[in-house]
Amino acid sequence: MNRRHLLRSGAAFGALFAVPTVRAVSRAEDWIGKSKWELETPALCVDLDKLERNLTAVHTRLKGTGIGVRPHVKTHKCPALARMQMKAGAVGVCAAKLSEAETMLENGVPEVLMTGVNVTRGKILRAMELRRKHPGFIQAVDNEVMAADLQDAARALGVVADVVVDMEVFKRSGVPVGMPALRLAQQVDKSPNLKFRGILAYDGPSQHIKGHAARKAQTLQALAPVVETREQMVAAGLNLEIFSGAGTGTYDMMDGVPGFTDVQVGSYLFMDCQYLEIGGAGNDLVYEDFAPSLTVLATIINANHPSETLVTDAGSKALTLNQPPARVIGEPGFEYSARSDEYGMITVGGATREYRVGEVLEVIVPHCDPVVNLYDVLFGIRGDKVESVLPILGRGKSQ
Amino acid sequence: MNRRHLLRSGAAFGALFAVPTVRAVSRAEDWIGKSKWELETPALCVDLDKLERNLTAVHTRLKGTGIGVRPHVKTHKCPALARMQMKAGAVGVCAAKLSEAETMLENGVPEVLMTGVNVTRGKILRAMELRRKHPGFIQAVDNEVMAADLQDAARALGVVADVVVDMEVFKRSGVPVGMPALRLAQQVDKSPNLKFRGILAYDGPSQHIKGHAARKAQTLQALAPVVETREQMVAAGLNLEIFSGAGTGTYDMMDGVPGFTDVQVGSYLFMDCQYLEIGGAGNDLVYEDFAPSLTVLATIINANHPSETLVTDAGSKALTLNQPPARVIGEPGFEYSARSDEYGMITVGGATREYRVGEVLEVIVPHCDPVVNLYDVLFGIRGDKVESVLPILGRGKSQ
Repeated sequence: MNRRHLLRSGAAFGALFAVPTVRAVSRAEDWIGKSKWELETPALCVDLDKLERNLTAVHTRLKGTGIGVRPHVKTHKCPALARMQMKAGAVGVCAAKLSEAETMLENGVPEVLMTGVNVTRGKILRAMELRRKHPGFIQAVDNEVMAADLQDAARALGVVADVVVDMEVFKRSGVPVGMPALRLAQQVDKSPNLKFRGILAYDGPSQHIKGHAARKAQTLQALAPVVETREQMVAAGLNLEIFSGAGTGTYDMMDGVPGFTDVQVGSYLFMDCQYLEIGGAGNDLVYEDFAPSLTVLATIINANHPSETLVTDAGSKALTLNQPPARVIGEPGFEYSARSDEYGMITVGGATREYRVGEVLEVIVPHCDPVVNLYDVLFGIRGDKVESVLPILGRGKSQ
Repeated sequence: MNRRHLLRSGAAFGALFAVPTVRAVSRAEDWIGKSKWELETPALCVDLDKLERNLTAVHTRLKGTGIGVRPHVKTHKCPALARMQMKAGAVGVCAAKLSEAETMLENGVPEVLMTGVNVTRGKILRAMELRRKHPGFIQAVDNEVMAADLQDAARALGVVADVVVDMEVFKRSGVPVGMPALRLAQQVDKSPNLKFRGILAYDGPSQHIKGHAARKAQTLQALAPVVETREQMVAAGLNLEIFSGAGTGTYDMMDGVPGFTDVQVGSYLFMDCQYLEIGGAGNDLVYEDFAPSLTVLATIINANHPSETLVTDAGSKALTLNQPPARVIGEPGFEYSARSDEYGMITVGGATREYRVGEVLEVIVPHCDPVVNLYDVLFGIRGDKVESVLPILGRGKSQ
């Protein structure tokens, strides 16, 4: 029946699909060598030239300061990128969650500091099993019960585990500075199966303050109580070989913090709309220390009302609800909304030309970390060509 | 050195971890039979009793109306759940994206209507390859160029493909009603390798209008132009065997729409905070037609300031930024913020008791679709026990 119908078809339509045996691409690796504009969208892309520039820029800027780089992999969740960061001179990487740390250590990234805490028996055990297999694993703690449980687990598994104490810089994570922090550090130091290596102090709220001078003033003030507690720890004879913190917004202002050892930059590799607008040392309006390498390709799927709205196939499942919204490259007057799960809605303003259904737009993402966490692969782009496919093996590893 | 350190350790700490060889659970299937409270968090759970009740409730309510159920799998992206929906009496399922439709058809779900459009040559080819393998695949179109390309691809691949025309109910997707829609339907009908099956009309904006009467008035008004165009199509001798639309918010008001055939409910299986507050036919304040079966388990990881804030391990990577925020079951006074990527911040109000680090909270999710899309598996819970592990094979399939 279908076949008869087909034979009746005639040749009324153009021969756009001339070769009946042509196969559609389905495996990510099959895209290598093709133009990025052919990718099926939404597609997560990284410009490799820009990525490589960002990878070295942070080391170049910190050269001579004595401050090292310990990139945070929560941003990219990709062991291949973590290995590139190690090769570029990182002292190790940070991971937020246990399953993220496991993914890194089991995929050729030897030095992982877990900045988040594990508080349940199951996770503490898994962390110590990870330590048994991978001597480069360092675990953060921020309370006494957890430190005692960690000691028990380390002893049960026959390891001496490296530990850092996470300090409370703002009310979210960490042990309060002063006596509570000092006591916790001393408890860890005295625990026979734990080795106290130092402290973490992440100042989250300062990262996105606009203006370099304002940001610097704020973060130095926020870190002052940590510095004071660190001095008490040193006076108490504790080992402070690690004093890790900062992020992409504050990486270049830590030489004002006594004893500080390394920056936990994450977004510097990719950049995003949130970081672009904070301004830097060289330009107070646009943060230019790093180039926006990460983009999403989206296809226009509806243009019924082209002077008002263009609709794309990239909504909140492709770009998240983070603000500020995605920026359409080449069209500064376009306002992108990813409020719909499956659709992007662009309010058209000052278009440089007319757009039609089927055309592909490239956007800078609102906030890189949660956007990357939506995709299984990241396409590595050189020029306009797909050069590599980077599996995001830590995607969804929020446990 | 580690070993010597260990031997010096003595027995100062309690024997919480008595068995050195105990293994941490890591494969999802290993949790089957255990209590859900032991799961590593954040964990996505579905209460199977409630799920099964929701699964049949929609059919019970629509019995005798002549309206069928064509559930939308964009909500759960899980072939196992789609098979349950088919078994419960669905006429087929809907998928939003091509890769989602592929995942369903290749995993035992025989009837899939793709409500989104494919507009590029690559995807149109893939869609027709899918049709060649799976006769139950139906494709939506909403413009003439795409319909012509689809005809070419169908001819090239030797199939006669089932097609529905998506109608514009609001400015996002679909062909404008009236002449443009009629012309497109006639073009499809005349295309030798396409078979016109009917129309789609999804009224997104009405789904979350509060109050059953207001919602019904609004959606009937929004659909009136579609109904008129449908009558023109019938008068023109077109086949209107499908007139699909509606959602969880409007599924029970479609008998007022002439010719309407089936509802595309998705969220009814899970519910979420967004749908709970729209009210239903029986209760204008709380939507009680379906039970909230979907939850996320989150662990308290910091309680430094227990009268103000509790911090959990479930932030925007576990719960999205959708509003209204997650609801903590059993603590109506708690305000949950998932603004941080990795951390949930609960503003404590009217706590029924004191909470400590390590305790697990259960929350109803803000908006089910994008939350499910963050997880690889859904734990099926009966009572408090893990009964099954449902792989979310369509997770991230936004292409």
